[in-house]
Amino acid sequence: MTITITAFERSPDGGKGLARDTRVRWALEEVGLAYDVRLVSFRAMKEPAHLALHPFGQIPTYEEDDLVLFETGAIVLHLAQRHSGLLPGDANARARAIAWTFAALNSVEPPVLDLVTAKIVERDQPWAQDRLPLVIDRIRQRLVQLAARLGDAEWLDGAFSAGDLMMASVLLRLRPSGILSEFPSLAAYVARGEARPAYQRAFAAQWAINGAAPQAG
Amino acid sequence: MTITITAFERSPDGGKGLARDTRVRWALEEVGLAYDVRLVSFRAMKEPAHLALHPFGQIPTYEEDDLVLFETGAIVLHLAQRHSGLLPGDANARARAIAWTFAALNSVEPPVLDLVTAKIVERDQPWAQDRLPLVIDRIRQRLVQLAARLGDAEWLDGAFSAGDLMMASVLLRLRPSGILSEFPSLAAYVARGEARPAYQRAFAAQWAINGAAPQAG
Repeated sequence: MTITITAFERSPDGGKGLARDTRVRWALEEVGLAYDVRLVSFRAMKEPAHLALHPFGQIPTYEEDDLVLFETGAIVLHLAQRHSGLLPGDANARARAIAWTFAALNSVEPPVLDLVTAKIVERDQPWAQDRLPLVIDRIRQRLVQLAARLGDAEWLDGAFSAGDLMMASVLLRLRPSGILSEFPSLAAYVARGEARPAYQRAFAAQWAINGAAPQAG
Repeated sequence: MTITITAFERSPDGGKGLARDTRVRWALEEVGLAYDVRLVSFRAMKEPAHLALHPFGQIPTYEEDDLVLFETGAIVLHLAQRHSGLLPGDANARARAIAWTFAALNSVEPPVLDLVTAKIVERDQPWAQDRLPLVIDRIRQRLVQLAARLGDAEWLDGAFSAGDLMMASVLLRLRPSGILSEFPSLAAYVARGEARPAYQRAFAAQWAINGAAPQAG
């Protein structure tokens, strides 16, 4: 089995590991699979060859022999379902771990991405400064709920799972803003994720590409 | 096996079927499972009994004997994986159908929900009118890409799947805005979804609750 993923030729985050290929690298490391990486430029991502792999012109994609996948959630779930290490054995516990994967991507990440829209995409708009507090408040509302559910547990539902991998990855995007540190239990949860050897290897692999390179425009 | 889902006591859409319980009802009808519904008020959704089922205080939830799930994507995927009718038999085709489920929720729905934020949550903000075209443009960008991938196919990847169920459900939210009708092939795709007997039963079931009742403030 040959696995190839795509990643940014130069990640806009300059090596912070926030691009979505890090999530897939982390999952591959957790389940112990080797993989190749094909780097793509922003221009190549919008060209037919890449659009054939990813209809929305983004990274990462995942190629495994004749299977082509896009959507980070789907790739991580595919790995989790076919290999051991990211989902519990009990059927109901598996379903709950998958629910946390969706929760990370659908209930927590949208307000987090709205912060990127507000701070970067719309930064020159006249409403940028006035709108920002509303966007941040919506993130805080979600984090209050998430912290309440996590309580003092180590992971969201029993052992570390694909759900934790995705939730920690989403929360990591909030660290540069300072919002994550407002929630010490969530910051500690993310730190536990980052301390995992599989995450360390994934981070180092993307850093080797993005950390040393000069940042894009 | 006893299945119970939760739904709005009064859906804010007044019976258009856009609340997320309709997606779960549709999946249950496609796989041929009977279910009970427990209606919850907006106030009850934020109280401890409901938060124990859904950490973000929303609907739907899904209870199946001693399994409790939240997140519509996870519930639909759980049904699709345990029962026939929503995923193809071939392993790679299954993974691709699951990818479309994530794509609907993660790549298409976030800009669609941003329209709700812009039109309703932020409607009284001074930037509301000026910001709206940006929000709509982001939706159009996604729909151009989605229409390009769909082409003249009936469904996104072979036979109707959970991915189509979710994508059609997400696109349905755009019909009231008029944006869906700008993309005739996607409008026809959604209409094919709505024409399915399972969708018709799901819609009728939510209409019986929401359509006749007076709308909430």
